[in-house]
Amino acid sequence: MEITDIAGVYCNGVKEGKFGLGLVKCSGTVAGVFTRNKIKAAPVIVCTENIADGYVKGIIVNSGNANAFTGEQGIEDAREMCRIAAGLFGCNEWEVAVASTGVIGRRLDMEWIRVKAPEVYAGLGNTKAHADNFARSIITTDRFVKKTCSEKARIAAVAKGAGMIAPNMATMLCFIFTSAKFDSGELYEMLRKAVDRSFNRLTVDGDTSTNDTVLLVSTGRERVDAGIFEEELEKVCYSLAKQMARDGEGTTRVFEVAVDGAASDEDADRIARTVASSLLVKTAIFGCDPNWGRIVAAVGYSGADVDEKITLSFENQTDRVLLVDCGRPVGNEREARELLKNSEEFVIKIELEKGKGKGFAIGCDLSYDYVKLNSEYTT
Amino acid sequence: MEITDIAGVYCNGVKEGKFGLGLVKCSGTVAGVFTRNKIKAAPVIVCTENIADGYVKGIIVNSGNANAFTGEQGIEDAREMCRIAAGLFGCNEWEVAVASTGVIGRRLDMEWIRVKAPEVYAGLGNTKAHADNFARSIITTDRFVKKTCSEKARIAAVAKGAGMIAPNMATMLCFIFTSAKFDSGELYEMLRKAVDRSFNRLTVDGDTSTNDTVLLVSTGRERVDAGIFEEELEKVCYSLAKQMARDGEGTTRVFEVAVDGAASDEDADRIARTVASSLLVKTAIFGCDPNWGRIVAAVGYSGADVDEKITLSFENQTDRVLLVDCGRPVGNEREARELLKNSEEFVIKIELEKGKGKGFAIGCDLSYDYVKLNSEYTT
Repeated sequence: MEITDIAGVYCNGVKEGKFGLGLVKCSGTVAGVFTRNKIKAAPVIVCTENIADGYVKGIIVNSGNANAFTGEQGIEDAREMCRIAAGLFGCNEWEVAVASTGVIGRRLDMEWIRVKAPEVYAGLGNTKAHADNFARSIITTDRFVKKTCSEKARIAAVAKGAGMIAPNMATMLCFIFTSAKFDSGELYEMLRKAVDRSFNRLTVDGDTSTNDTVLLVSTGRERVDAGIFEEELEKVCYSLAKQMARDGEGTTRVFEVAVDGAASDEDADRIARTVASSLLVKTAIFGCDPNWGRIVAAVGYSGADVDEKITLSFENQTDRVLLVDCGRPVGNEREARELLKNSEEFVIKIELEKGKGKGFAIGCDLSYDYVKLNSEYTT
Repeated sequence: MEITDIAGVYCNGVKEGKFGLGLVKCSGTVAGVFTRNKIKAAPVIVCTENIADGYVKGIIVNSGNANAFTGEQGIEDAREMCRIAAGLFGCNEWEVAVASTGVIGRRLDMEWIRVKAPEVYAGLGNTKAHADNFARSIITTDRFVKKTCSEKARIAAVAKGAGMIAPNMATMLCFIFTSAKFDSGELYEMLRKAVDRSFNRLTVDGDTSTNDTVLLVSTGRERVDAGIFEEELEKVCYSLAKQMARDGEGTTRVFEVAVDGAASDEDADRIARTVASSLLVKTAIFGCDPNWGRIVAAVGYSGADVDEKITLSFENQTDRVLLVDCGRPVGNEREARELLKNSEEFVIKIELEKGKGKGFAIGCDLSYDYVKLNSEYTT
């Protein structure tokens, strides 16, 4: 299934060097979840306003320039993008959602957008090639396009982003479409939960961008059970989050930290995030070093209520290697090293004896290439 | 001035490969500040107990093994270290302070300590050579010994640690001696403040060790004004924290993030720490890239109350380059790049218009060598 299998979704895009422009014509109910960064890019502010009534007629997205930290002029430019799209879609500017990704602090090249938008619009369509054009138009440093779908819940989605890797280059943008019928309030509640259990669990380097935007648009009238839809939406978002982790700059391995037995769910989440963000853990995993001492130390400084009664294991789809059993090191380092070497994805399982709190986070390793990409890229 | 200029301090140490043992004979009042990691190493627990009465007769320290995550046996071993030292010093075991640094989760080689301690004790003395032996005995991955002094306040100190770099290898240990007379309550209050404005500001990678220990021992009866002592003690700790940052694994540049005009001091500290810990900021600085967009994004996601009215400049001892003036990028990137290239130390100055809150943090850049050292080191 593709985005273009969703009723009434027509898209297209162009990419010229670093710069891209994409359009989606899609009429329906909408909900959005945006960055929690206090410095919000202009398109985030304008998009939030435009979708507030719960309806949308189309989406315009540019890549290569984030239109962030651009003051009043930035707001005006984001509105102008909506006006340009509205002129083409034949709707009002406040019926258009807008998103941007790219460099911070530079004015948008409005002339380029003005010239390109009609070209993109002229090529709108609902084939796989159209969807691919759109997906390519919104990526920046991404090594590949992220997409997934749920046949069952009539959902298809496309995303860009390599975690929250590089605010000035690699914002997370995600556009989810469904022909299942829900009003915008229902969409929002389900989207908020799904984002919290997917993108918000992803810690590539802990930085969150000024432009992060997730939109969910319902264009159809199909009936899908809300419970099933919610479950499938979470799977869609989780899959995209994993794809982003896999595309983390220089990433060689993706892992989930799963915590059980914490004093509360909040504590479990705190532990999971702290372990997944620890540079020492991330570099150890890059080196295939089952350095459980670093994991235990991260559990200790997470701020959660913990003691030494920790059980720690590494798991992949076929194996489980126990490293620490209720506070006692068991000495399976060699087996654990083999598991790491043979796994592009694995789980760090941490069990405490504090309560019933569960939580998880998604992380990736830290390699030479991360440093290379982020130190050599220049403004 | 050296440690051994402090009245009544005698020290010595041995280093054999990865393992070291150091002794200090020093009778007086004492205060200690320890790791806030919830998983505390055995020596931290035992040392906290032993200095609780405010008096100490000597210190025993080993390197190469952290005696952390070692359960009841670890506690017993830490106590045994104190007993061994007490036997030599001719005091009670509860009058001995103890500290360890090294690998987590392995039992101490008590036999080695039992054999080496009398050798070290036999060589105790108060010359520079003795102090150097002690300083060398406590280091692990450190590239150099950290020490400093204040003639004015009669303080001398020695430390090990490369920030909070590698919990299983590079704990922060610091031993500060003074011949100024203060009771242990006074010492504690002054030490707590000094640590909060120095070591606690240091973010090399955000990880804090299971073993971090700072001890302040007053061995003499000299009279020093409390205000002057407090000020000088802070300078001593700040100098050692900077030395640790400079010795950060793979560090090429040390910087201070100084924040002014925040809504509160807490907000200012939060912003400073967030910027100093941002991997994107750290890698940009390694690449001499004045990437202010990453700094502004970090200010935004710090959680502090901020808006776009940010003024941002880079400063070293001779120059100041303004990059953002009250939210407006000013385009001095070339000058800023030159400043970075020519500065081993510099300040990222962030001014907000939210209030009178001030704060700071100490950071260092992130280089290929950080990844190399931490991925190739194996348990």
